[in-house]
Amino acid sequence: MPKISNKGKQMPESPIRKLVPYADIAKRKGHKVYHLNIGQPDIKTPEIALNAVKNADIKILEYSHSAGFESYRRKLSQYYKGHALPIDFEDIIITTGGSEALLFAMGSTMDVDDEIIIPEPFYANYNGFSISSGVKVVPVISTIDTGFALPPIADFEKLITPKTKAILICNPGNPTGYLYSNDEIQQLAALVKKHDLFLIADEVYREFIYDETEEHHSVMSVKGIEDNAIMIDSVSKRYSMCGARIGCIVSKNKEVMAAAMKFAQARLSPPTYAQIASEAALETPYIYFEEVIDEYRDRRDTLIVELKKIEGVKVGTPKGAFYCIAQLPIDNADKFAQWLLESYSYNGETVMVAPAAGFYSTPNVGQNEVRIAYVLKKEDLIRSVEILKNAIIAYNSI
Amino acid sequence: MPKISNKGKQMPESPIRKLVPYADIAKRKGHKVYHLNIGQPDIKTPEIALNAVKNADIKILEYSHSAGFESYRRKLSQYYKGHALPIDFEDIIITTGGSEALLFAMGSTMDVDDEIIIPEPFYANYNGFSISSGVKVVPVISTIDTGFALPPIADFEKLITPKTKAILICNPGNPTGYLYSNDEIQQLAALVKKHDLFLIADEVYREFIYDETEEHHSVMSVKGIEDNAIMIDSVSKRYSMCGARIGCIVSKNKEVMAAAMKFAQARLSPPTYAQIASEAALETPYIYFEEVIDEYRDRRDTLIVELKKIEGVKVGTPKGAFYCIAQLPIDNADKFAQWLLESYSYNGETVMVAPAAGFYSTPNVGQNEVRIAYVLKKEDLIRSVEILKNAIIAYNSI
Repeated sequence: MPKISNKGKQMPESPIRKLVPYADIAKRKGHKVYHLNIGQPDIKTPEIALNAVKNADIKILEYSHSAGFESYRRKLSQYYKGHALPIDFEDIIITTGGSEALLFAMGSTMDVDDEIIIPEPFYANYNGFSISSGVKVVPVISTIDTGFALPPIADFEKLITPKTKAILICNPGNPTGYLYSNDEIQQLAALVKKHDLFLIADEVYREFIYDETEEHHSVMSVKGIEDNAIMIDSVSKRYSMCGARIGCIVSKNKEVMAAAMKFAQARLSPPTYAQIASEAALETPYIYFEEVIDEYRDRRDTLIVELKKIEGVKVGTPKGAFYCIAQLPIDNADKFAQWLLESYSYNGETVMVAPAAGFYSTPNVGQNEVRIAYVLKKEDLIRSVEILKNAIIAYNSI
Repeated sequence: MPKISNKGKQMPESPIRKLVPYADIAKRKGHKVYHLNIGQPDIKTPEIALNAVKNADIKILEYSHSAGFESYRRKLSQYYKGHALPIDFEDIIITTGGSEALLFAMGSTMDVDDEIIIPEPFYANYNGFSISSGVKVVPVISTIDTGFALPPIADFEKLITPKTKAILICNPGNPTGYLYSNDEIQQLAALVKKHDLFLIADEVYREFIYDETEEHHSVMSVKGIEDNAIMIDSVSKRYSMCGARIGCIVSKNKEVMAAAMKFAQARLSPPTYAQIASEAALETPYIYFEEVIDEYRDRRDTLIVELKKIEGVKVGTPKGAFYCIAQLPIDNADKFAQWLLESYSYNGETVMVAPAAGFYSTPNVGQNEVRIAYVLKKEDLIRSVEILKNAIIAYNSI
């Protein structure tokens, strides 16, 4: 029998999805499962996007241009300019989700055994894309005690080797909810400039910022790092259309974009229907975002207040995205998450959380932490935390 | 300025798309361009697929399961069983086009510097996926003189090294139109069994076979190579829905599928709208295919008859897919293809062809060959060949 690749062996199982079989067990028992584990929002997709697909007059569902519809790229450029980001349509290639944008960014900038520094905890699939690209992830640890702020630049510098090609950040952060300050972005800019590195920023949660005193600082707005900066974006969260699978890779660096374009040509084109929806979504009325942000702010505030009521729980207040990392008074979050589904219920209900260890690349870190996504209604969040509270007591008395 | 990767430099430009700027020049001059260069069929997508999307009642465009809709996978299994292929739904992961299925197949079976043997000329993007995966393509030459039949097994055996992990075929072939006989598939099966290799078969043109005496032999129907065989499939050509971007990877090898599933999880899910269309497309009435096959047979026959009328042209009769490789009485097809667009017109019209050199991995082979896709109506094909005939005369008298 032929052997699979080492790459195939090393690819991580999704820390979010590997508990699914246990959730199925809970559901078969008739237990209701509150999903705090996955970033699938319950927010309605803008009707303007859905209707555009319904009304599309398609006779032949053709390939689009490999870079995506030019009309969409031009409108997207206007959208970015509206956010004070000087992005022209030639700086944009439409991709199949932010996922593909990251793969193109890695493929265009890194060779096998090259290194990418990523503050951890980080979005778990960065590991998968790195393995898939043959790239080595070098984590730099941020901690719950600082609210997952940017680690000191000296910590990054210690890790830089001749193999280091890029720094990757997620801003605002999944799974931390941390929003980098202007000062932090400037520090990173100076660092990549000094060491001639790429600065790849996953900015798919740009709109999800909850405090009026805070604002988003994109790597695309920093002067002087035009050739270093690569932005990853996606419509998934912005318009609650995760299933579209549309994102983009953005850079002013012409060589990077020319290389990314060759990767784009190899896979022919991004999905046509989803581009129609995404282009139309740009016309979403502003009130939609105001309502969504109000709703998430309310959820965040509710979740954090409730979590802090549980004795022994440590959690900061996330400034953006819709996740937080909470430290729980338990021995091991992997065991606990599985136990919640397999063996526990509180009046016939239980919760599913994502063990945070899967978001760290360093072994044995974050073992008593979980990532909670606040993508459920307020009442459900209150109920979920009540279940969690009782579960912690029950788990610790086994 | 940070440097792009060697991978990014090595990625090939699409031989099909790199002439696009010259086509734009021709169009700006007001010349009509007949596109013989690209596999974008002009056949209508089945209405049942388009209507399913129009009528889908979506409120939130959610992620699907990473393996694709289970309902779709189950129906696809039935479809394959209808073609006498013993494929269960667990043997199928839905992918974003056949392109992603190939990337998953390579990632799951091959590490950096591993080798994959591919009969050439082959689908140009196999090069791109290989570079992207860090895998080395080892070509084995098939020739226009044998109609691009399978090269002798001894030729394969000469190329097998400890690094060889797989053989990749396209059946029926793009760009050759060649359909492997049962005997050829059995020879390949014995070879991969003997050397413990994977046999990856791109079978996206399965339905496009034009002679009633011929039938398709899938690697999934060969007994004894269940652990070696990996099939790549796609809805793009079958239902003329290239823009959907839906394909699948199929194998009975559980380890391969478990690894592929991890690649699938990393990119979250295939596009939702396109899955709705693809699932509905399975209900396409049989008459649709009969009409499509009749149409393509007619086009093929027309094209080949017309091409053979040109003095000095060598071309076989393709048995499947909708491409042929034709050897033209010219010095260099790259130059010729560009000249056709940039400098030539026949009564205000010209043709765009794909130089075949881009479909070979060996340098300096196929330089006077072009790939012609017969995806245009009969009248347009006749007209195109007339233009080509006059163009060859004009080109050779410069």
